[in-house]
Amino acid sequence: MLYIALLHYPVINKEGKVVATAVANMDIHDIARTAKTFGVEKFYVINPIEAQRQLAGQIVSHWREGYGAVFNPSRKDAFEKVEIRSNLDEVLADIQTAHNCKPKIIATGANFQGEILTCNELREVIKSNHLPYLLIFGTGSGIAQEVVNQADHRLEPIRGKNGYNHLAVRSAVAIILDRVVEIT
Amino acid sequence: MLYIALLHYPVINKEGKVVATAVANMDIHDIARTAKTFGVEKFYVINPIEAQRQLAGQIVSHWREGYGAVFNPSRKDAFEKVEIRSNLDEVLADIQTAHNCKPKIIATGANFQGEILTCNELREVIKSNHLPYLLIFGTGSGIAQEVVNQADHRLEPIRGKNGYNHLAVRSAVAIILDRVVEIT
Repeated sequence: MLYIALLHYPVINKEGKVVATAVANMDIHDIARTAKTFGVEKFYVINPIEAQRQLAGQIVSHWREGYGAVFNPSRKDAFEKVEIRSNLDEVLADIQTAHNCKPKIIATGANFQGEILTCNELREVIKSNHLPYLLIFGTGSGIAQEVVNQADHRLEPIRGKNGYNHLAVRSAVAIILDRVVEIT
Repeated sequence: MLYIALLHYPVINKEGKVVATAVANMDIHDIARTAKTFGVEKFYVINPIEAQRQLAGQIVSHWREGYGAVFNPSRKDAFEKVEIRSNLDEVLADIQTAHNCKPKIIATGANFQGEILTCNELREVIKSNHLPYLLIFGTGSGIAQEVVNQADHRLEPIRGKNGYNHLAVRSAVAIILDRVVEIT
């Protein structure tokens, strides 16, 4: 049982202040469609700013119940996967309620080194049991260290040629789900 | 030697008229970053409408030579891969000039059936020789049949769960390059 989350906080700005990144319309669209393609249970958009959650909520409603649902039914199907939450604890509580157990948290990042879980290993554990797994993706400069520390595992980064590691998060989610979900 | 192209034409509209799809800013950004990650030679944006090519050109210049290049040098690196052309023949001529031979054309599509090339097969042929390969991705409702007919091969579609096949082209490019490019 695979869940994914896109985390918009916390980010430290140049003045050393903790801020959140903004919700990007295209992130919700692309990642919802990828989540639907690979049979992910839910795609959580996590943002601590109420105005940002309202914006995300309007986008989701447009495609789930508004004119978008009529205009493009396949987009409606993808948006059924989207849930908006304020913080990671709310997401963990949701999943725990649904499954009666805490999810295993897998952090992703472009610069992880050392002890990491490979995509092959993750694919094997996901298909070998019915425990919930939560894959977390970051925005801006990635997932804050305090969230990484909370994770059960860190997933291997996507390695490119010549060390270039600046994929869009939309692209990273697509590649990682393709690697860790077995389509039978 | 792998090249990719994003084709914005031809599309038949509801009145039966041949039109082109619009250039999407995010397509250029995401696919350029993916192309750079996987060591693609060039990423061709193909659009027959001059105003659309001008728009794409302004976006590319901003990130390659304008303020964007200073603001985000890794984005500049990705945009070095982008070339804008009017039609597929111009792209084929470019590649032929660079390599002294015509590229093998591989069409992609979400609904291909029958005789198809698998991603594993394509990965093996790309790494076993130095011939140029051109992977073509469509926008809107995919690549027009006349372009598919011109291709040497049709690539296997990305199969999702429960038959859902509505990935963003940005996500499809990421998944397919991850599958066909071997990172050593």
